[in-house]
Amino acid sequence: MSGYCRATYRCYDEKADFGKKAQGIAVGLTVGSWTDLPEARKAEMEKHLGKVVSVTEVPAAESPTGERYADIVIDYPDINFSRDIPALLVTVFGKLSMDGRIKLIDLDFSEDFLSAFPGPKFGIEGVRKQLGVENRPLLMSIFKSVIGHDLPNLREQFFRQALGGVDLIKDDEILFENPLTPLEKRVEACMAAAAEAKRETGQELLYAVNLTGPTFKLAENAKRAIRAGANALLFNVLAYGFDALAELARDPEIHVPIAAHPAVSGAIYPSPHYGIAAPLLLGKLMRLAGADLVLFPSPYGSVVMPKEENMALKDALTSDGLPLRKSFPVPSAGIHPGLVPLIHRDFGLDVVVNAGGGIHGHPLGTAAGGRAFRQAIDAVLAGEPLREAAKRHDELRAAIEAWGIKE
Amino acid sequence: MSGYCRATYRCYDEKADFGKKAQGIAVGLTVGSWTDLPEARKAEMEKHLGKVVSVTEVPAAESPTGERYADIVIDYPDINFSRDIPALLVTVFGKLSMDGRIKLIDLDFSEDFLSAFPGPKFGIEGVRKQLGVENRPLLMSIFKSVIGHDLPNLREQFFRQALGGVDLIKDDEILFENPLTPLEKRVEACMAAAAEAKRETGQELLYAVNLTGPTFKLAENAKRAIRAGANALLFNVLAYGFDALAELARDPEIHVPIAAHPAVSGAIYPSPHYGIAAPLLLGKLMRLAGADLVLFPSPYGSVVMPKEENMALKDALTSDGLPLRKSFPVPSAGIHPGLVPLIHRDFGLDVVVNAGGGIHGHPLGTAAGGRAFRQAIDAVLAGEPLREAAKRHDELRAAIEAWGIKE
Ligand SMILES: [Mg+2]
Ligand SMILES: [Mg+2]
Repeated sequence: MSGYCRATYRCYDEKADFGKKAQGIAVGLTVGSWTDLPEARKAEMEKHLGKVVSVTEVPAAESPTGERYADIVIDYPDINFSRDIPALLVTVFGKLSMDGRIKLIDLDFSEDFLSAFPGPKFGIEGVRKQLGVENRPLLMSIFKSVIGHDLPNLREQFFRQALGGVDLIKDDEILFENPLTPLEKRVEACMAAAAEAKRETGQELLYAVNLTGPTFKLAENAKRAIRAGANALLFNVLAYGFDALAELARDPEIHVPIAAHPAVSGAIYPSPHYGIAAPLLLGKLMRLAGADLVLFPSPYGSVVMPKEENMALKDALTSDGLPLRKSFPVPSAGIHPGLVPLIHRDFGLDVVVNAGGGIHGHPLGTAAGGRAFRQAIDAVLAGEPLREAAKRHDELRAAIEAWGIKE
Repeated sequence: MSGYCRATYRCYDEKADFGKKAQGIAVGLTVGSWTDLPEARKAEMEKHLGKVVSVTEVPAAESPTGERYADIVIDYPDINFSRDIPALLVTVFGKLSMDGRIKLIDLDFSEDFLSAFPGPKFGIEGVRKQLGVENRPLLMSIFKSVIGHDLPNLREQFFRQALGGVDLIKDDEILFENPLTPLEKRVEACMAAAAEAKRETGQELLYAVNLTGPTFKLAENAKRAIRAGANALLFNVLAYGFDALAELARDPEIHVPIAAHPAVSGAIYPSPHYGIAAPLLLGKLMRLAGADLVLFPSPYGSVVMPKEENMALKDALTSDGLPLRKSFPVPSAGIHPGLVPLIHRDFGLDVVVNAGGGIHGHPLGTAAGGRAFRQAIDAVLAGEPLREAAKRHDELRAAIEAWGIKE
């Protein structure tokens, strides 16, 4: 409905009258009370009143968890809240989040609400343009370890990753401002390593430096990093709130792609009964707030998210349903070259293959680790089985011997 | 241990080797790898390495939920992270939050980490001083409804609440910047009503106006509100992140008490398996970040938090264990005058009795609703049963007839 943002909840209760509960939410989170309003006042207040769109009850016998629940859909008038994510979340899931077993599973934004969000500044197309890479999945790598390491060590790690032909290198999300590798010096050292590697690989590379520090200094720190040469940022969105990301993404001087890290999100999405569903939390809201790339737990590694949630998350980042640039999905954790066919099948071309151990742990070293991934990507795009391609490529062969193929 | 911040996790797993899991966390979230480091390097890296303090396994047969779990305690070196809440949370529960059924149940801060946090600027003592009220629980009220109401209406609601003798009045957390009651005009109208009421009651009153808007404008908006006369702020901490609160609390120009609202926190604390426990989320971290008053679901109303969690939360806000001013506990939801004896027994003197419906829904009106609470508080402090006091006080008697007494 135009002028309304829509929230979908899954609400578990053994005996609640879900219709009544839905009405209570629609009134309680908007005008506060309705039935006791004088008729004249109702006419005025109508435009502020939440509307129950649907209540779909599922009895215990038909519920996947064996528990009775209902999906409740409610429309909230835009006129009630400002056009920012904190206002929307506090409206639709502020007090309500504490009211029993209820999970926010989706949000649909009105045109008016959306109009306040430029979304990703680069998105999939923009990131591809920065890198000059069309028509293949991108490859990202993560430093092996960063804490306690000095600049020459980081530079060396960076250089080896870059030599392997990766498109993006990201800081570890747990690297904060520190005397060994302070922000600007780190950017300078790594970008110098990128330039050096480019002379060998001919390849562009984005370095996502971890944006940290006090909330009200984030924009300043981002600009310091950019002035020092940073061409991308990594940001722990959930530790600072979605609005901080939205503000950074909206700032015209922060003209580099932003990669959103899902740190701390596991406190919010995994429970069936509480929290905010992953496709909304790490998908739609990240894209709305302006993340150009979004990391999330892959369905392949040890840090697991159910496959259907992963696919819904991908859809939220890339669907045409939102009038915003698309965010690059970056399924992370447990990725090795033998998974590339599966990643390609699940995510298509527009995915960032992101590896840490699968690059640094390569038997022939870090640069070979990157090459093995690039060989795997090329094989998959050529429709060639990895085992065939491995016959021509030492690096891919060694990777497959180490970690196998999963198809 | 000096120089380390300590995290306590509850980890559920049917068959994990919890000792090994704990080691994996301590290494994985700090230096990344340990056993494969050369001995010379280990000496250097030792100071960055996390330490397993204890692993307490509870077999399924002895577990309250019937599920096997372990409480894992790990010390993280301060040297690894900057002295802010996002850095600490990302370090101890960033990636780990996504790694299976694991909940962050407590944090202990090192002296060095704590030294970066001034904590609440006022705290319990400071708020009492502002109000000139010693030795009794404070009384707070909430507007009945705010959305769609204009300034004269809000002013009138405010005035009636103030006449009843409440000490604090808070905005509804869902009231955002809007053309009917914009921030500065709202503050002016309500503070004028407060002054008018004071001529009748002789009483000081704090008005916590809802601080909203873009993250990077929060400090500016707070100062605008203060310039317009605001003498307190309400803040939806979880919607913006703890660090935004810490920055506001640290700003010398924001010299008014801040009340933290728990909106959206129900997405994080209620699950036994995931998230961050309420006493940490709404207790210790709120106090660390500088909340002078903290609202949280009372154990009495419809929005329920288990009693023992409520008590642990209260302890976190008020214990002498932290070298910070104490935060006022504000148990909220479902509060009526007949609950005052119970609130006093559970929370003692240093509590804010916070009511919405229990004031506005009073049979004799809003001002009578406030008076009934004040009468109940006086009776409890005098050791007089409410039923006795009600014989002398029409307002208290009407309240008890409407809602009863719970002792
Ligand atoms: Mg990492
Ligand atoms: Mg409210």
